[in-house]
Amino acid sequence: MISVGIDLGGTNIKAALVHKTDGFIDTISLPTHAEMGKDHVFDRIAMAIDELIENNDVKPIGIGMGLPGMVSLDRQTVKNPPNLTGWKVENVSKELKKRTGLDCVIENDGNLAALGSARFGAGTGFDSFIMITLGTGVGGGIIFKKKIYRGTTGMAAELGHVIIDYHGPLSNSNTRGGIEAYLGQRFLSRYAADRIRQHPDNTLFKTFSKDFDLLEPVDLYHAAKDGNELAIDILKKTGEKLGYAIVNYVHILDIKKIIVSGGVAKAGKFIFEPAKETASQLLMPPFLEGFDIIYETLGNKAALLGAASLAFEEL
Amino acid sequence: MISVGIDLGGTNIKAALVHKTDGFIDTISLPTHAEMGKDHVFDRIAMAIDELIENNDVKPIGIGMGLPGMVSLDRQTVKNPPNLTGWKVENVSKELKKRTGLDCVIENDGNLAALGSARFGAGTGFDSFIMITLGTGVGGGIIFKKKIYRGTTGMAAELGHVIIDYHGPLSNSNTRGGIEAYLGQRFLSRYAADRIRQHPDNTLFKTFSKDFDLLEPVDLYHAAKDGNELAIDILKKTGEKLGYAIVNYVHILDIKKIIVSGGVAKAGKFIFEPAKETASQLLMPPFLEGFDIIYETLGNKAALLGAASLAFEEL
Repeated sequence: MISVGIDLGGTNIKAALVHKTDGFIDTISLPTHAEMGKDHVFDRIAMAIDELIENNDVKPIGIGMGLPGMVSLDRQTVKNPPNLTGWKVENVSKELKKRTGLDCVIENDGNLAALGSARFGAGTGFDSFIMITLGTGVGGGIIFKKKIYRGTTGMAAELGHVIIDYHGPLSNSNTRGGIEAYLGQRFLSRYAADRIRQHPDNTLFKTFSKDFDLLEPVDLYHAAKDGNELAIDILKKTGEKLGYAIVNYVHILDIKKIIVSGGVAKAGKFIFEPAKETASQLLMPPFLEGFDIIYETLGNKAALLGAASLAFEEL
Repeated sequence: MISVGIDLGGTNIKAALVHKTDGFIDTISLPTHAEMGKDHVFDRIAMAIDELIENNDVKPIGIGMGLPGMVSLDRQTVKNPPNLTGWKVENVSKELKKRTGLDCVIENDGNLAALGSARFGAGTGFDSFIMITLGTGVGGGIIFKKKIYRGTTGMAAELGHVIIDYHGPLSNSNTRGGIEAYLGQRFLSRYAADRIRQHPDNTLFKTFSKDFDLLEPVDLYHAAKDGNELAIDILKKTGEKLGYAIVNYVHILDIKKIIVSGGVAKAGKFIFEPAKETASQLLMPPFLEGFDIIYETLGNKAALLGAASLAFEEL
């Protein structure tokens, strides 16, 4: 069985043909051109799908699509997706059915990253896990008994907006001291710049003092690997923050496998080890049995595979 | 259909005969005498049940029982319940079956307070809600689609140990800045005493300065009702803390009805209004639709009715 997976972002449309058990058959990526309006975006998605089908001469059973924003419980309509100019309440499934003739289900991209991990990635071994996606923002999804936990209105797992310090910094939302305000890429970079400015003798200062806006988490990672104590400490403090948030997820959900994915997650053990240590100290002892933090190596492909999996399971 | 509900605490055993739709038929309360050992406690529970059955001449279908501590997924065994001297891993169902001939299922008392509310209380109108129990400690339960959400090992909804300030005060666990450290009865009293000590002209100071250990949340409530600005502010600050925790529950679970029960909850609007205001400011806007905080008037009876309901549903 073959389906189409789409990962729609503000910058790129990623599309794939996916076989239910074997995974990727073919993939395409093209710029979203969101600024040209939603009809243009739907046309471009349909174009990518047509190209995939023609090039591979297959008949997919339908389309599964991930995108940012709030998805309705019937998995057809999205509401005010961020980074997609001019989108309000849009019946995405109808628009794509009209253009491709294929049935289409949609889902929040964090939930699909979790589903992709559950079907093809680090999550395959677990009935239940919490997926944290660390990127520009912090998001995620909850897999409970092999299915996406969606809550009462499809918005569950806003993991980035879980407070760990009510008098902490703001991030992109009105939630103060949410974990995104520490681990979101921009916020981590800003925190790192503030720390580095106090150490003019550090190689990171020498490299970035001309323009700290160029500093990215990956630079911290490389410096940490080279033994830069300041970089190691910045990532350690950041990992500790992640640990506090994980305590909150685990104490509420009683799900003890944590899978972390995304750009910032590449800082690897320099973030994960402190996160695990902090969570292990603060979790109530019965929650420690089976507790683990695992890195998802699928990266961005998790959401695309999750999108295709959604089509297999819902169409 | 009639069942027996038991609410076992460190101080009292409460037992009830409950009709599936009509509620309480008869209730009994007797001291637990936990210090006399577990066999004695099981004997006393069986005695209470026999008495209820004889006095009312009924044939209950079985026993549902709530108690503190970790309950196994098969709802038979409890592990290290706090306040019950000498209990380790105990098959409570087997012990009661032996003594009464009746089948028995057990469950964590926070979960049963939620189930009681769902079947007989403020929760009857909702498919899904979060129950917060405010007492000596802070606990709770999650009802999702009319059933207890138990997580992967039966320990879900440790709501008191959700961090709102990672450098905050300790409570009874190793979790720092958990909500119990602000709303647990002892912690609230301590915070209040610290505030009152700074206002020797306040009537609360005059009443309690001889022994601040006698100050209880209910005293703050009465003072607040009388217009005592300090008491109002203490309860307001406490309510705000509850608001932060609620933001965390809602952002993770996407369950937007919050039911609050228990002793501290009697401080009513002086805590709830600030909690609601704080949560409303900090929740992401889509979560505000349908968001509400409701007071459970069943009080301690919620857990007892929940215990009986468990018997109806599981036996």
